[in-house]
Amino acid sequence: MKIGLDIMGGDYAPKATVLGAIEAHKNLSKNQHLVLLGDKNVAIPILQEQNFNPDHFEFIHTTEVIGMGEHPTKAIVQKPNASISVGFQMLKEGGLDAFASAGNTGAMLVGSMFSVKAIPGVLRPAISTIIPKVKGGFGILLDAGANADCKPEHLVQFGIMGSLFSKYVYQINTPKVGLMNLGEEAEKGNLLTQATHPLLKANTQLNFIGNIEGRDLFNDKADVMVCDGFTGNIVLKLAESFYVLTVKKGFKDEFFDRFNYEQYGGSPILGVNAVVMIGHGISSPEAIKNMVLQSKNMVESKIIERFKNAFNS
Amino acid sequence: MKIGLDIMGGDYAPKATVLGAIEAHKNLSKNQHLVLLGDKNVAIPILQEQNFNPDHFEFIHTTEVIGMGEHPTKAIVQKPNASISVGFQMLKEGGLDAFASAGNTGAMLVGSMFSVKAIPGVLRPAISTIIPKVKGGFGILLDAGANADCKPEHLVQFGIMGSLFSKYVYQINTPKVGLMNLGEEAEKGNLLTQATHPLLKANTQLNFIGNIEGRDLFNDKADVMVCDGFTGNIVLKLAESFYVLTVKKGFKDEFFDRFNYEQYGGSPILGVNAVVMIGHGISSPEAIKNMVLQSKNMVESKIIERFKNAFNS
Repeated sequence: MKIGLDIMGGDYAPKATVLGAIEAHKNLSKNQHLVLLGDKNVAIPILQEQNFNPDHFEFIHTTEVIGMGEHPTKAIVQKPNASISVGFQMLKEGGLDAFASAGNTGAMLVGSMFSVKAIPGVLRPAISTIIPKVKGGFGILLDAGANADCKPEHLVQFGIMGSLFSKYVYQINTPKVGLMNLGEEAEKGNLLTQATHPLLKANTQLNFIGNIEGRDLFNDKADVMVCDGFTGNIVLKLAESFYVLTVKKGFKDEFFDRFNYEQYGGSPILGVNAVVMIGHGISSPEAIKNMVLQSKNMVESKIIERFKNAFNS
Repeated sequence: MKIGLDIMGGDYAPKATVLGAIEAHKNLSKNQHLVLLGDKNVAIPILQEQNFNPDHFEFIHTTEVIGMGEHPTKAIVQKPNASISVGFQMLKEGGLDAFASAGNTGAMLVGSMFSVKAIPGVLRPAISTIIPKVKGGFGILLDAGANADCKPEHLVQFGIMGSLFSKYVYQINTPKVGLMNLGEEAEKGNLLTQATHPLLKANTQLNFIGNIEGRDLFNDKADVMVCDGFTGNIVLKLAESFYVLTVKKGFKDEFFDRFNYEQYGGSPILGVNAVVMIGHGISSPEAIKNMVLQSKNMVESKIIERFKNAFNS
């Protein structure tokens, strides 16, 4: 297994990414290789500083970097030698099993959609994000922002992808799927959720438990929480801001601690032909390590094949 | 000034509503009268228990009650003698200046829309909800759930109504209006917010500061936060659930304390021809008191006239 890591991506790259790679390496087995994409000349001194043998990694030396503020499509076209561009090229050609970056999110999305491409039958790949549950464990919310406007059939597919992801990556046997809505009753909703509810209910691939509300994000009602990317993005950023507040206020608590994104490292883009993981811009070495390990889990779960089977039938 | 209070509305009615009315009365001046709508025979014993002279109130005896779970439109039609139905009838005929109820929210909306009716020029009345800000003070979010699907011109009107409300009820001089969105940049958004942004920007009645994100709900970026009712409902319920969690966890903090809905009592329906206030189903006497006092503030602010002037031009 080869996991590609963009060492140029993120606000604290390359230092945080290279340190994270060292930590990840310690948790990988012999047949799991970490491929570092980026400027080798800046990576080596960081490794030497840590007395870490560079031979543990494979290097793909790249000479360009896509900045955090750059226009995604333009950047990928104009910078074919950037770490993100090269990563997707390798992913497409099978040279990598997974690619992870805490760099430009838009470029990661564009690379996923136009280079690796959507799995046949998947209408809209989606960003999935982890949500801690008060009673322990985790749920996932998708779409977290890849698709601002969605149709009912997109939300149904998010439910299917989320279920498979929950089952095979998080080992939740029969994941409960909930539709994020403004009321519990089946007939409640906006035009989108009103049209989506019966489709989810009729789908035999899903364990649909009905509508959930904003107040159900952290409880045990649903393991897979489905919404359009506009709603998901706002919900996610609001929840994060609340976590930041509890930290600022000095509240210490097991549940709030599990909001710390560092533990998960990244958010996968589900529905494309390879494992792609997007990290938080402010990723620390700990976050980078966990993003790599999460990528490994996804490859091990054979999630891409499972998606292909689900949508090609 | 006559403020109507539905003493039959809410999970703890009529006890909580009557006790709340007593507390509110203590804070009203001589020319501000509280009119209690409901079963006088159950209200009097509660007042006697409190050694409170019933003559301080005007009573409108009603014989029916619209339950919390009843279908709003049917209930209002089939129960003309219910406290909510009579309240709207009086409001429409000018017998009341304001009407407040912690009862069936849907019935309150239906009564507002079909009995009191929208102010000419207002396309869609909206529910406004108060949001505490970390640095002190409050903002408002609208629509909080009256309109699940909105058009750009509706959101612009929410901005205008919210600005007038902030200015004249909360004394915020030039309220900053923000559009809830998935990114800060002007071009970001779903179809609705992308189309709304330039309209808000071009509107000279507004101090539009641009897009805000989920993480900006509690900071000082915007005083008036505009969104469709689907988004607003989810944001509001999520924020409330976080407050409930901090209470359960035993966190005490000045900011989180200000989440307690009891302090505000109710959410106004903005854009109809009278002051209408919807209370939380679980309203305590303290919440009922503050809902009445908030209604009084709205009448004093002449907000209905100000809306009429803004939309009739």
